Amino acid sequence: MKEYVVAVVGATGVVGKEMIDTLESREFPIKRLIPLASERSAGSTISFNEKSIRVEELTESSFEGVDFALFSAGGSISEKYAPFAVKSGCIVIDNTSHFRMDPTVPLVVPEVNPGALKDHKGIIANPNCSTAQMVVALKPIYDAVGIERVVVSTYQSVSGAGKSALEELENQSRVNLSGGNYPPSVFTHPIAFNVIPQIDSFLESGYTKEEMKMIQETQKILNDPAIRVTATAVRVPVFVGHSESINIQTKQKITAQKVRELLENAPGVEVMDAPENFEYPTPRSAAGQDAVFVGRIREDVSIENGIELWCVCDNLRKGAALNAVQIAEYLIQS
Amino acid sequence: MKEYVVAVVGATGVVGKEMIDTLESREFPIKRLIPLASERSAGSTISFNEKSIRVEELTESSFEGVDFALFSAGGSISEKYAPFAVKSGCIVIDNTSHFRMDPTVPLVVPEVNPGALKDHKGIIANPNCSTAQMVVALKPIYDAVGIERVVVSTYQSVSGAGKSALEELENQSRVNLSGGNYPPSVFTHPIAFNVIPQIDSFLESGYTKEEMKMIQETQKILNDPAIRVTATAVRVPVFVGHSESINIQTKQKITAQKVRELLENAPGVEVMDAPENFEYPTPRSAAGQDAVFVGRIREDVSIENGIELWCVCDNLRKGAALNAVQIAEYLIQS
Repeated sequence: MKEYVVAVVGATGVVGKEMIDTLESREFPIKRLIPLASERSAGSTISFNEKSIRVEELTESSFEGVDFALFSAGGSISEKYAPFAVKSGCIVIDNTSHFRMDPTVPLVVPEVNPGALKDHKGIIANPNCSTAQMVVALKPIYDAVGIERVVVSTYQSVSGAGKSALEELENQSRVNLSGGNYPPSVFTHPIAFNVIPQIDSFLESGYTKEEMKMIQETQKILNDPAIRVTATAVRVPVFVGHSESINIQTKQKITAQKVRELLENAPGVEVMDAPENFEYPTPRSAAGQDAVFVGRIREDVSIENGIELWCVCDNLRKGAALNAVQIAEYLIQS
Repeated sequence: MKEYVVAVVGATGVVGKEMIDTLESREFPIKRLIPLASERSAGSTISFNEKSIRVEELTESSFEGVDFALFSAGGSISEKYAPFAVKSGCIVIDNTSHFRMDPTVPLVVPEVNPGALKDHKGIIANPNCSTAQMVVALKPIYDAVGIERVVVSTYQSVSGAGKSALEELENQSRVNLSGGNYPPSVFTHPIAFNVIPQIDSFLESGYTKEEMKMIQETQKILNDPAIRVTATAVRVPVFVGHSESINIQTKQKITAQKVRELLENAPGVEVMDAPENFEYPTPRSAAGQDAVFVGRIREDVSIENGIELWCVCDNLRKGAALNAVQIAEYLIQS
């Protein structure tokens, strides 16, 4: 079996670490793993397949002889270094938002639009975490009855904002429980025992960039600019796992039971929908899992053709690392 | 000035205490305050206007000579004792769901439908906390351009579930931060660092009772059975303050700026909407305040006539105690 040289850019970050764990747990055929990071983090070590590997500094020549480079070190790093990787003949799978809306770059969720991969020119974009889990849940419904409009509100964990955000939630919670004050620094407001209706920065329209990502990326992944989406993205005091309340107006009528059946047979989805036994997904139960969990499936009482559902996923896995590794797996199989 | 005898049923509960604080802080003209509770809590004392008052046991004859009785001790207590109160000539303002959908009982938010008060027959219902704050925000928009449909997702604090829920969030958070496990007992799943898409019990339709309250009570308060509402009610690890992501499809087009102006001039509403300065409401900033706070006002990109907004309120105040006291104030003024 062929083995590959794989570089992970941003190897010491929350998503980078999850990428390395995912490559290991899914037994991706690796000849050599090259963890890359900024000068500051270079020299530290990461663990892979029970070996300790030294983190190297990311440079323009890091990608010689590399087959796949998984980037998750911020948009400006992808912007600067992905072209060098491509020039070295490496395939870039980029987890940042930098290339996502570039019409020459496929934006791919393997369960949803694997066909888009065949057009890649060296760079493939991984969607925003909130978008990835949503399109996995929407796709079977979209294929069955068409989707007119989606209204989504998110409940996003702090891990999407990186290591320092995880620390801020932990430390702030602890200090607050002792009656103390812990001023926010990663977030614009306290996140402990609070919710913050802002993720990423604001645009002129009043939407945030995060919300517009959910709208535009959904249209691109479903390859349907006519699908209408609106989103409100909210940070909640959860460590790992994003939840979404999704209202779907379908083109044709579909029953909740039919949606349940479709999703039970859909790749990457696990239906947890037995409310009489209090069975529905929560972020704490989804954390550390690969699937996109869906529950609370019901027919919308407010319109003729509507479905409400609740979708939860480990944002570091399917929302980031897992999807990137799945893209690489798809490419080596096809 | 006339003074009144006021009984508070459930005086030792989270909402009952808030009712007593609200009567005091708003200087309701009280001749005598009678705190009532179950046999278990009777004999304890509460503080009112710097005096200590003994909590009495609730009985069928507790309401003799009482002008107003504010009930917040659960639906079954209201069901059993409200009729005795009415028979004694007392006006009941009931915070439970028991009488809300009774067509002979007005369901009132004073800023929204004070006119409904004139038809009362001794019992007036206080709406569900999530409904109360939502209709305060919806009403000015409803009056200006009509509302076709509302899609709401909530982020509800644990205080809505009472004292033991506040303790469970606090203790579970503390134990979890120390690496320990703290099994849930008030909630069906852990609430610390988690979100739970269930409030109240499930109905055959897949909606919860809480969600159906938001739908039916909104129609009753706006006196418009044609207004279409769907809701997803979610518990978040916040002590006090409910947040709502509200998507509004209006009958006629309205701009975000016009909505902002309407809400700035609306009774009971405070607009906090300067995202460029990170100004928007959060539950921690709304807790302890009387107003319904609204921010993130923007035109929905997915439909022609749509508005998105974010609404936050202290669920113990406007969502419960304040609204009940405002009803009593309205009655003594008119």
